[in-house]
Amino acid sequence: MSTPSPTTPAPPRSPLHSILYDGVSLRYLNQRLLPTELRYQTVLDADGAAAAVAAMEVRGAPAIALLGCLAVALELKGGRGPRGDPEALVEFVEERMGRVRDARPTAVNVGRETERLKGEMRAWMDREPAVSEGELRDRAIAHLEALLQKDVEDNRRIGSHGARHIAQRLQGGSRATLLSHCNTGSLATAGYGTALGVVRALHSEGRVARLLCTETRPFLQGARLTALEMLHEGVPTTLIADSAAAAAIRERGVHAVVVGADRIAANGDTANKIGTYSLAVAALHHGVPFYVAAPSSSWDPNVPNGASIPIEERPERELTELQGVRVAPHGIDVWNPAFDVTPHELITGGIVTEFGVFRPEELRHASRRTPRPPTSASLHPVVPYASCSNVPASASSSPNRKCCHGARETESGGEETAESGGGGKGGGEGAEERRPGHRPQEAACDPTAEAEEDVGGRHSAPH
Amino acid sequence: MSTPSPTTPAPPRSPLHSILYDGVSLRYLNQRLLPTELRYQTVLDADGAAAAVAAMEVRGAPAIALLGCLAVALELKGGRGPRGDPEALVEFVEERMGRVRDARPTAVNVGRETERLKGEMRAWMDREPAVSEGELRDRAIAHLEALLQKDVEDNRRIGSHGARHIAQRLQGGSRATLLSHCNTGSLATAGYGTALGVVRALHSEGRVARLLCTETRPFLQGARLTALEMLHEGVPTTLIADSAAAAAIRERGVHAVVVGADRIAANGDTANKIGTYSLAVAALHHGVPFYVAAPSSSWDPNVPNGASIPIEERPERELTELQGVRVAPHGIDVWNPAFDVTPHELITGGIVTEFGVFRPEELRHASRRTPRPPTSASLHPVVPYASCSNVPASASSSPNRKCCHGARETESGGEETAESGGGGKGGGEGAEERRPGHRPQEAACDPTAEAEEDVGGRHSAPH
Repeated sequence: MSTPSPTTPAPPRSPLHSILYDGVSLRYLNQRLLPTELRYQTVLDADGAAAAVAAMEVRGAPAIALLGCLAVALELKGGRGPRGDPEALVEFVEERMGRVRDARPTAVNVGRETERLKGEMRAWMDREPAVSEGELRDRAIAHLEALLQKDVEDNRRIGSHGARHIAQRLQGGSRATLLSHCNTGSLATAGYGTALGVVRALHSEGRVARLLCTETRPFLQGARLTALEMLHEGVPTTLIADSAAAAAIRERGVHAVVVGADRIAANGDTANKIGTYSLAVAALHHGVPFYVAAPSSSWDPNVPNGASIPIEERPERELTELQGVRVAPHGIDVWNPAFDVTPHELITGGIVTEFGVFRPEELRHASRRTPRPPTSASLHPVVPYASCSNVPASASSSPNRKCCHGARETESGGEETAESGGGGKGGGEGAEERRPGHRPQEAACDPTAEAEEDVGGRHSAPH
Repeated sequence: MSTPSPTTPAPPRSPLHSILYDGVSLRYLNQRLLPTELRYQTVLDADGAAAAVAAMEVRGAPAIALLGCLAVALELKGGRGPRGDPEALVEFVEERMGRVRDARPTAVNVGRETERLKGEMRAWMDREPAVSEGELRDRAIAHLEALLQKDVEDNRRIGSHGARHIAQRLQGGSRATLLSHCNTGSLATAGYGTALGVVRALHSEGRVARLLCTETRPFLQGARLTALEMLHEGVPTTLIADSAAAAAIRERGVHAVVVGADRIAANGDTANKIGTYSLAVAALHHGVPFYVAAPSSSWDPNVPNGASIPIEERPERELTELQGVRVAPHGIDVWNPAFDVTPHELITGGIVTEFGVFRPEELRHASRRTPRPPTSASLHPVVPYASCSNVPASASSSPNRKCCHGARETESGGEETAESGGGGKGGGEGAEERRPGHRPQEAACDPTAEAEEDVGGRHSAPH
């Protein structure tokens, strides 16, 4: 690999996990006790999972969904539910998953996983009318158990792609100072994280000088969770107030800002935790690349742009009280949006997915050129990203690269078309002309080729 | 006045006061009890003032200085201290003021007022060697008592100049949506406020649609104090998280951002509460004018630029604890600067002083063209601002204005020179060319003329 070797390789250390599952027992990290106490608690079934969710002891839509799915897998393994009747088994699974879904209706992932599993089970029954309840049960268990590993693997791919993209911007073997927002790590996902997955991957290569982590008002996910995760893994991390981010970018020599995403519109506009937009504006002003790291399932081609993404407004008391103590006067009006939208043109680093790093514009092109509308039954269309996972590592430092880890510089890729390459380059120059002085961004992969993997079955990025 | 008449004149309402003084008694608002309780407590002497300061019941450097000065005035009025010996009286005053200074050494204003009063007393003794202790005592009392009114008057002028400047940007009789940071109001000053003074003045004319007020982590001066003050006076105010400011500027239709200043360097670079720089970057990105409102004494021509302003770093626990409850993991590194520096080119609205609204560049010109270095004994040089206070109101809406409320369009002013006018205009165009797309800013006064008033004796803007 021609990337400079790391100056101080970081010792490997296992991340904190929101969920521990070994096929026999299921435990979750009680997040209400963080950061002062690390306590894993056991869940025996869907009711136990629902109780943990209702008590806010588990947070993050992906983590909630996985807890519910694995609790139901345990029930199926333990022989609960109807025996001998495949159709009744489908209904049983739906009912059990529904317990968890109803504990946090806004976390849509449980519902999506329920629909997907039901669809799979009925498809098996259609294809094999003689399938036994026992076979169906085994397949459902395997399907549910695979979700955990799939989530971790996708996040590891996101981390790897993002880390390589950022490392290529660094001079020599130097290390990066990164800035991130909210919590997008192990504690919000099955294990590795999205934006923090990128940080983890870069750190594993000894290429992180420091992570600056915003406290992320009002819920303080940065102070409570990100700081804890990074401290646990030995990533040099500095906590800052949200309002200090612009000054930190200027004065602490930030090389890249990396955040997660709740939802990415067709044109690349991205909704994420409130404050993300402010960071993107500050990054643009300082010529620092701004990355959004999220599984491809976060991209919703049915939402044309950021203006179409509904933004949840949260209760006033999140700003008027601290630890239950009133800090703002009674009667004051409050505007407390949970998220804001970052326009795609501010995502100057790229959108990091499990398939590679893409320019936001490429999502648009992909959606225009690959008319594969999702069926109404499916909320998880196959995202027509190009696969970049087959790129040899040695290609990553080739000169004149105009693509993500793959495409133009790879010998095995060949996904790029002249048309898309030109379009990508032109878009890049246009973007740079709009804001003279900010560092040029690298073009990413050709998104017109089909993805090699079906990316269904995952969730939007965590919060 | 040709400014459009207000659509909804606001009823006058007296502001909250940090200090109440009637020549006989002195009371302060206990700010530790805010916002849930409004309790005024009595101070009898310098020791009482020092105790209130040490207990953090009074905050804001100007308010602290005034409390100390008025407490000493009360002692002098009550006949304390040596009788019959003018020189001993000077020493007594110095010792009593020192009690308050030592209670909060970082609040430099008490020390400055002490030096100024000592200088005045010795000057009287030099001019009139036969001055009696009683006469000297009376003059000292008058000097100290005048500070309160002077602070309020200067702040009212700041408010008036800033309000007029902003009102002229509004179409027709429309009202402004403003955004401010930290607390720069009655509670941090003697009475009216700097940036909040501008808001107050605009509101008194019915020209404020809404003030967006950041909560201002970590001390929450916005949530605790600004929200309270504005609610008290009936200014429509919405509290937001600091990180929501950029989204608010975009989505709530902000017309101007107005903040205070701790210290303004010779070139106009301004140090203010952490987060100010982030707001300035966001304002620039959205083409929204950014104003700094501060007494002219905040300008320090001895500090060439922002890089020379020392930035205080505050304790980690301000970010790692909330109401005494640990929220971040032990061992996490913290970067908690109290202030950040906003480069002068981002102050696109202008610097609002008691003498008018100035372009930051004009401060530089003024410092070059008016070589009047402060003596080493004085920390308060006469600031060579042009006086704009003699401008007829009718001039403020004249077309093609290229100056603050005065100068080119006034009949009575005449301060402007051809050279400075051209320079000011050229500077303005240059600034606009640097950032295409942001709203053109208006040029302000010619700063080369001498100020009509000696502006010594005041303090930096509050926090």
